[in-house]
Amino acid sequence: MPAEEHKWFIEHTSPGTAHMFGVVNFLKSMRTEYQQVEVADTTQFGRILILDGKIQSAEYDEYIYHEALVHPAMLICPAPRRVLVTGGGEGATLREVLRHPTVEKLVMVDLDREVVEICRELLTSWHQGSFDDRRVELHFMDARQYLEETDQLFDVILSDIPEPVEAGPALKLFTRQYFELISKRLVAGGAFALQAGDCGLPFIEAHSAILNTIRQVMPLALPYRAFIPSFNTEWGFILAAAEGREMPAAEALDLLIQERRLDLRYFDGETAGSIFALPKDIRARLAAETRTIDDDNLISVY
Amino acid sequence: MPAEEHKWFIEHTSPGTAHMFGVVNFLKSMRTEYQQVEVADTTQFGRILILDGKIQSAEYDEYIYHEALVHPAMLICPAPRRVLVTGGGEGATLREVLRHPTVEKLVMVDLDREVVEICRELLTSWHQGSFDDRRVELHFMDARQYLEETDQLFDVILSDIPEPVEAGPALKLFTRQYFELISKRLVAGGAFALQAGDCGLPFIEAHSAILNTIRQVMPLALPYRAFIPSFNTEWGFILAAAEGREMPAAEALDLLIQERRLDLRYFDGETAGSIFALPKDIRARLAAETRTIDDDNLISVY
Amino acid sequence: MPAEEHKWFIEHTSPGTAHMFGVVNFLKSMRTEYQQVEVADTTQFGRILILDGKIQSAEYDEYIYHEALVHPAMLICPAPRRVLVTGGGEGATLREVLRHPTVEKLVMVDLDREVVEICRELLTSWHQGSFDDRRVELHFMDARQYLEETDQLFDVILSDIPEPVEAGPALKLFTRQYFELISKRLVAGGAFALQAGDCGLPFIEAHSAILNTIRQVMPLALPYRAFIPSFNTEWGFILAAAEGREMPAAEALDLLIQERRLDLRYFDGETAGSIFALPKDIRARLAAETRTIDDDNLISVY
Amino acid sequence: MPAEEHKWFIEHTSPGTAHMFGVVNFLKSMRTEYQQVEVADTTQFGRILILDGKIQSAEYDEYIYHEALVHPAMLICPAPRRVLVTGGGEGATLREVLRHPTVEKLVMVDLDREVVEICRELLTSWHQGSFDDRRVELHFMDARQYLEETDQLFDVILSDIPEPVEAGPALKLFTRQYFELISKRLVAGGAFALQAGDCGLPFIEAHSAILNTIRQVMPLALPYRAFIPSFNTEWGFILAAAEGREMPAAEALDLLIQERRLDLRYFDGETAGSIFALPKDIRARLAAETRTIDDDNLISVY
Repeated sequence: MPAEEHKWFIEHTSPGTAHMFGVVNFLKSMRTEYQQVEVADTTQFGRILILDGKIQSAEYDEYIYHEALVHPAMLICPAPRRVLVTGGGEGATLREVLRHPTVEKLVMVDLDREVVEICRELLTSWHQGSFDDRRVELHFMDARQYLEETDQLFDVILSDIPEPVEAGPALKLFTRQYFELISKRLVAGGAFALQAGDCGLPFIEAHSAILNTIRQVMPLALPYRAFIPSFNTEWGFILAAAEGREMPAAEALDLLIQERRLDLRYFDGETAGSIFALPKDIRARLAAETRTIDDDNLISVY
Repeated sequence: MPAEEHKWFIEHTSPGTAHMFGVVNFLKSMRTEYQQVEVADTTQFGRILILDGKIQSAEYDEYIYHEALVHPAMLICPAPRRVLVTGGGEGATLREVLRHPTVEKLVMVDLDREVVEICRELLTSWHQGSFDDRRVELHFMDARQYLEETDQLFDVILSDIPEPVEAGPALKLFTRQYFELISKRLVAGGAFALQAGDCGLPFIEAHSAILNTIRQVMPLALPYRAFIPSFNTEWGFILAAAEGREMPAAEALDLLIQERRLDLRYFDGETAGSIFALPKDIRARLAAETRTIDDDNLISVY
Repeated sequence: MPAEEHKWFIEHTSPGTAHMFGVVNFLKSMRTEYQQVEVADTTQFGRILILDGKIQSAEYDEYIYHEALVHPAMLICPAPRRVLVTGGGEGATLREVLRHPTVEKLVMVDLDREVVEICRELLTSWHQGSFDDRRVELHFMDARQYLEETDQLFDVILSDIPEPVEAGPALKLFTRQYFELISKRLVAGGAFALQAGDCGLPFIEAHSAILNTIRQVMPLALPYRAFIPSFNTEWGFILAAAEGREMPAAEALDLLIQERRLDLRYFDGETAGSIFALPKDIRARLAAETRTIDDDNLISVY
Repeated sequence: MPAEEHKWFIEHTSPGTAHMFGVVNFLKSMRTEYQQVEVADTTQFGRILILDGKIQSAEYDEYIYHEALVHPAMLICPAPRRVLVTGGGEGATLREVLRHPTVEKLVMVDLDREVVEICRELLTSWHQGSFDDRRVELHFMDARQYLEETDQLFDVILSDIPEPVEAGPALKLFTRQYFELISKRLVAGGAFALQAGDCGLPFIEAHSAILNTIRQVMPLALPYRAFIPSFNTEWGFILAAAEGREMPAAEALDLLIQERRLDLRYFDGETAGSIFALPKDIRARLAAETRTIDDDNLISVY
C-alpha cells in the first residue's frame, strides 16, 4: 500500500453509505465563522474542496459541474449582459460565465470571505484569475440580504450554494422565499439555474423538493443532471426561465457555442440531449413530489 | 449509531477510492470453484450480490442495470425468437428477456453452478422464477466452450459477465476472440449487447478498450451507459449490430414497448435518448482509444 | 488484497477512534429480545462474539479474559464449593470455574436465552460442553431479580456482564444497588470478581466509577487488568473480598494452581504480579475518582 | 457527527486489522529523503507523529513510551554520565535522559534531519527544548556508521528506532551486527535499552526475534512492555546489561527516583513490578523463539 493511503477523507452520505478518498495531503483545515473548510490533494481526483464534510468540487472533474451549472442558462439567453452568482466560492462559476463575450457585469455574492480567500490561494486552476476580472464585483454578505437590498436586474442568475446541512449557512437559500427574491431580480426573459442537490434515486429527496418549490414560483423549471465522478453520483441542476422558453436543439446549441467561441470540455448539443432527458424512474419520482420548501418548513440533507 | 452499522462491505475501486456499504446481515459468504461469492442485506440498497469483492447488483436498483442491458438489443430486433445469455447468474437478465412475447428459446450459459444456485435461493426478487420458465435452457460451462461447440444461431446475444479481475474467471470473455465467436452465432441482422465496465471517466480504461475491440469485430458498436446508484458510477454497455441498424427514435421506441406490452420502470424512449447520447468528454476519451483486447493481451480491473 | 478483506466489523470506541476487523464470514446476525448479536470469523482473531456492536471475546485470546476474570477470585478462596456467575453467555467462565475440583454447584444467570443458545451452537471452543456439566444450573432471568429472590449463599460470585451501553440491558448491573445484592449473597470470607470495563487511560471513566462504587459496598476492592489483543486495550477487572484478604504471593499462587491441577495458559504467579500492580498514572487516575454509580445515576459507555 | 470526523488516519497492522484515528488537522505531510512523515492533531490523542504510515508517538501518552524506554536503563546504572541515543527524533527520549542529574554528555544520532526539524517545530511538548541543552550533541547520520566510526564509550545506550518496515531505513538497526556494535560502545557495566516492537501476541514476531538476537550478543536481556493507548497494544522494550545486573526491587527503585529527583508520571517501583513481569503465554512464546536477525536475514513488519 503506497505511503499516501493511510490518510482518508470519508464522506458519509447516509448512515449506511460512505465514500473513501485517499489523501496525499491536507493543505488546509479550519473553521471559518460559518463552516468547516478543507482543501486536500487526493490520490484519484487531484485537489478537492470540502465544506462541512461534503465534497464541493474536485480538480479532476469540476469542469463538468461548472459547465453544467452555467452554460444552459447562459445559452438560453440571447445576449446575457448582466449576471449574478450567489455562492460559487471556488471562482469556477465566474470563469465559465466570463467565457460569454456579451457579459458586461458579473456580481458574485458569497457569505464566507475566508472560504473565498482560501479558494483564491489554493484553487487557482478553478478560478484562473476570474476574481480579478474587471467585470466582476464581489460582495461578502448573505445572498438573501443582497437580493432584498439591490434594485438591479439580471439577465442570468446562478445559485451555486452548498447543500443545506443541519445548522449550516445554506438552509434558507433553497426556500420559496429565496426563489421569489431571485425571480424579482430577473429581467423579463431572464434565466435562472442552480445546483439542486444529489439526483441519484436514493438521495433525491432534496432535489425533488427544490424542483417542486421552484415550480411554485417560476413559469418553467427544467431539471437536468450530470454524472460527476468525484461525487459518486449524478448531480441535479434546475434551469428556470420564462414560459415558452426551452433548450435549443442539439445543432442549434452547437452553433451558439461556436458563435460565442466557447471552448468547452463537457457541454455541447449532444451532452444537452443526454442530461436534459431523464430516465423514466426519475421522472416518475419527480412527478410524485408534493412538498414545498418554505422558510418555516426547511429541509436538510444528511 | 444504529446497531446495524458496525458491519460494512468496503468495495475498493482503486488504491485511493472505496465505497462503504453498511450491512444489516451477511446471508452467504463462500468460495466456489471459481470465485468468492457473498450475498448481503445492506442498509441503503437492500440485498446485494458480491463476486470477488465487487458488487454485481442490488435489489434497490438492479432493474436499471438489467433493463439497460436487455431491452436495447431486444427492441432493435423486430421479432427476437432465439436468445443467448452468457453469465447472468442472478436470473434477472432472463427475467427481462422473457418479457418479450416473441421469445421461443432462451439459452443461458454460466460457468458457476454454485453461484446460480445461491441466486436461485436468495435473489428471488431478481429472477422471479425465470429459471423455471419452459423456454429457458441452462448450461453450466465456460461460455467460450459453448460458443465453439454449438451450431445454433441466435437473434440476440447478451453477455452479462462480471468484470475481468486479476486471475478471475472472466478474463477471456472480453477479448477479440470471444467477440468473434459471438459474431458467428448471430443471425444476419442479429444484435449483441454486453455489460462493458465502469463508464465513469477515472475508471473508463476497460470500457474504452472493450468498445474498441468490438469495433474490430462488429460493423456497428454503440456505447451507452446508465447511472446505477449502488455502483456509485455510470455503468457502460455496448450494443453491437449489423451495419445500418440504429436505435429507433423515442416515439418509435415507446410504441414498440407498448406493442410488446413491456412493463418497464427505467427504459423508454426518453431514457434511450439520454443514455445513448454521450457527454463530449466521454466521446473524446472513447475516440482516442487504440487498444484491442486479445487472448494474448488481456486486461483486468482493480 | 485477499478476497476476504472486503467485509469488516468496525468497532467504534469514541467519536474519533475505531478498530477494523477483517471478516472471513459472518455466521450470525440477529436481534434478540434484548440486544443485537453477531458471531463472525475474523482474519486475525478467529471467531468473535459481538453484542450491540462491541466485541465480547475472541477465539484467539478469550482464555486471557476468562482466566483473568475467574481464577483470582477462585484462588483467594480456600475451597470454593458454590459459585454464581451472572452473565457469561459464552460459557467460558463456566469452563474456567469448573476446573476447580472443589466446585459442587455452579449457578449461571443470564438474561438472554437466545444469546446463550447461539454460543452453545457456535462457540464450542469457548464452553467445551460446560453447559452440560451436572454441577451447572442455568437460569434465564435478570440477575438483579435472581439475587433478590434467592436465599442461597455463594463462596464466589463472578459478574461477567457486557458493558453498560445506552439503553442496553446491563445498565443496572454496575450500580451500588447491584453490588449490595451481590454482597448479601456471599458467604463470610467469600470473593467477588467482575469484568469492569476498559482500563486504557482514555476510556477508563467507567472502570474508575465502578471501582469507586464497589469500594462503598465491599471492604476490599482490588483493581487489576489484562491486555487482550482483540480488545486493543487493557481490560479492567475488580476483585472484591472480605477485609484482610489479599492475593497470595507468586510462589504461593503457583503452588495453589498446582494443587488444584489447573492447566492454565495465561494466569500464574508472575502474571498475577504483573496485572495486580498498576502503573503510576493509572493509580493516580483511580485515586482521584469520586463518582458512585447508582440506580438513579447510571453510567454508559460510547 | 462533528465536523472533524471526516478526516481519518488509518493504521493497518495486518491485512485484517486496522485502527482509525479521527483527525482534526493534518499539520504536515511530506516525503523526506528517507521516509514519509506526517504530523496530525487527532480527536482522541492530541498531536501524533506518523512515519511511513505508522504512529510513532502521541501527545496524550508519549510519556508512557519515553519513560518506559529511558528510565529502566538509566536507573540500573549507578551514575550515568555519557549517554547515546540512536533515533529518537521527537526529542522526548532526550528529555527523559536529561532529567538524570549525573548526565554530562548526551549524543543523539538520527538519520533524518528533516524529521528532526519537523519535530523541533511541531512537537514542542515532546522535546521541551531538549535539543538546545548544552549537554546534547546532535549527529545526522546512519547509526551504524556512527557506531563504527566513534571511539567513545557510553554508560547507557538507548535505541529509539522506528520499526523495520519493508524498504524502510530501519531494517539494519535490529540485527546481530547492530547489537554487536552497540555492545562494543558500552562501558563495562553499561546498560542498553531499545524499543523492540509490538508485544501483543498476534504481532509479537518481530519483538521475539529481536529479543533472541540480543541474547546472542549481550549477557543479560530483560524484555518488558508497556500498554500505550494510542498504539492500541502493549509495546515491547528490552533492557540489556552486564551479567549479574538486575532491576532493583520496587522500594529501591522508588528511593533511586527520589534521590535523582525525577518527576515521573508513569514509571516507579510498582510500575516496574508490573511491566517486567510477563504473563505466562508471552513467556512461553518468547522462550520458544529460535530466530536470529542478521544483516543477511532481515525481518520487517507489516
